Amino acid sequence: WGTSCSVTAASLAPTPCLAHGAQPWAWLQFSQSGQPKDYALPNASWSQGMLNLYNEFVEKSKDGTWKRIPSYRLMLPLLTPEHPCPFTHPDLMKLEGEKMSKDTRLFLRSLDEEGLGFEYVMFLNPSEKRMVTVYQPGPYLEGHPGFAHGGSTAAIIDSTIGGCAIFVAGRVMTANLSIDFKNPIPLGSVVLVDGKVNRMEGRKVFLSCQVWSADGQTLHAEATALFIHKPVG
Amino acid sequence: WGTSCSVTAASLAPTPCLAHGAQPWAWLQFSQSGQPKDYALPNASWSQGMLNLYNEFVEKSKDGTWKRIPSYRLMLPLLTPEHPCPFTHPDLMKLEGEKMSKDTRLFLRSLDEEGLGFEYVMFLNPSEKRMVTVYQPGPYLEGHPGFAHGGSTAAIIDSTIGGCAIFVAGRVMTANLSIDFKNPIPLGSVVLVDGKVNRMEGRKVFLSCQVWSADGQTLHAEATALFIHKPVG
Repeated sequence: WGTSCSVTAASLAPTPCLAHGAQPWAWLQFSQSGQPKDYALPNASWSQGMLNLYNEFVEKSKDGTWKRIPSYRLMLPLLTPEHPCPFTHPDLMKLEGEKMSKDTRLFLRSLDEEGLGFEYVMFLNPSEKRMVTVYQPGPYLEGHPGFAHGGSTAAIIDSTIGGCAIFVAGRVMTANLSIDFKNPIPLGSVVLVDGKVNRMEGRKVFLSCQVWSADGQTLHAEATALFIHKPVG
Repeated sequence: WGTSCSVTAASLAPTPCLAHGAQPWAWLQFSQSGQPKDYALPNASWSQGMLNLYNEFVEKSKDGTWKRIPSYRLMLPLLTPEHPCPFTHPDLMKLEGEKMSKDTRLFLRSLDEEGLGFEYVMFLNPSEKRMVTVYQPGPYLEGHPGFAHGGSTAAIIDSTIGGCAIFVAGRVMTANLSIDFKNPIPLGSVVLVDGKVNRMEGRKVFLSCQVWSADGQTLHAEATALFIHKPVG
């Protein structure tokens, strides 16, 4: 994680990002292969239910309807419609090796050990302007005994619809997030966080989101949100 | 943390909890003194600004107007007006040594190293039905580069007003939380999360909350919430 590394603009040259995998910031923690670690891939902590849903969406991704979104230890901050791959945006190149912090971590990827915190993978459906996150909250996200903290549920909702808004509208910030908590989420269970853009008005992006149990029988939470588009200055 | 320990009801005998400190669950991680670790006390990661605000509220606590709320690695799940000390509630005694998990952690106390995540201390003003949290978000709570993730802000707001609702109304669950994000919170800065109960209607508890910069010049976020009282069954 702490390893410094020289990244050149050439090594970040445009590639079809989502489809083939990109070369992100080289300091984002390396996997054993020497590539930056993508956390949105199965690991030993994923339950069979999590794997089943993951495989289902991977299958749906084969015709391009859905796309798995890789996940690193920093947010994708500069994604825009013109630069759908976060690692090829000119502004990111400018940041190369200077402004991006090596000492921070994305909130949802802050824990070292697999399975303790947020285990999740996002799938984007561009034509539906929809993002679905397959999510397994771990034992370190506790609120009431045995259940996920409301703040952790807020975090995965914010990330899901934030990711969705970024792909549809470009760089955005959360302006309002309103969540109805319907049924607590048991730690270790698997849920689907299903978010979509409902409409856009100027710089405003209106989204909604539902959190369902894997079997579709329990609605855990429902949310509406307003994001504001912030052009890269 | 993993150490098992025999806790008897006698060792959890009623004590004036908030004023003098209680004996909580013995497996809640021990400090060097052999006492369970209270995380709502200064550590080396606290900035001078954090210490200043902490000292200010400790001073205000001397006449009993405010009370510092200790913080452990599990939520205070069974607090009621009849049992303001969570560690003396009969239902907790029933749970002793069996149902309470040793392998879970409160979401906001999930990181091992001081200063990386949520550093916070809550102060309750019972007569104002108000809870103020002095809060310093660490570098592992990142969303947009350099700023706290919206989900982490939601988490500290939910915890602050949840704590407030628990002390006023007893055992509660979050039903709705609506947050307006006004200005992003820089990582490492110090903010005041100021929550209060506005009114109660039957089992409903209505609260509001504001997140201010330490100097009172910047309103970072504003929230309203509805909690539902859940009697211990």
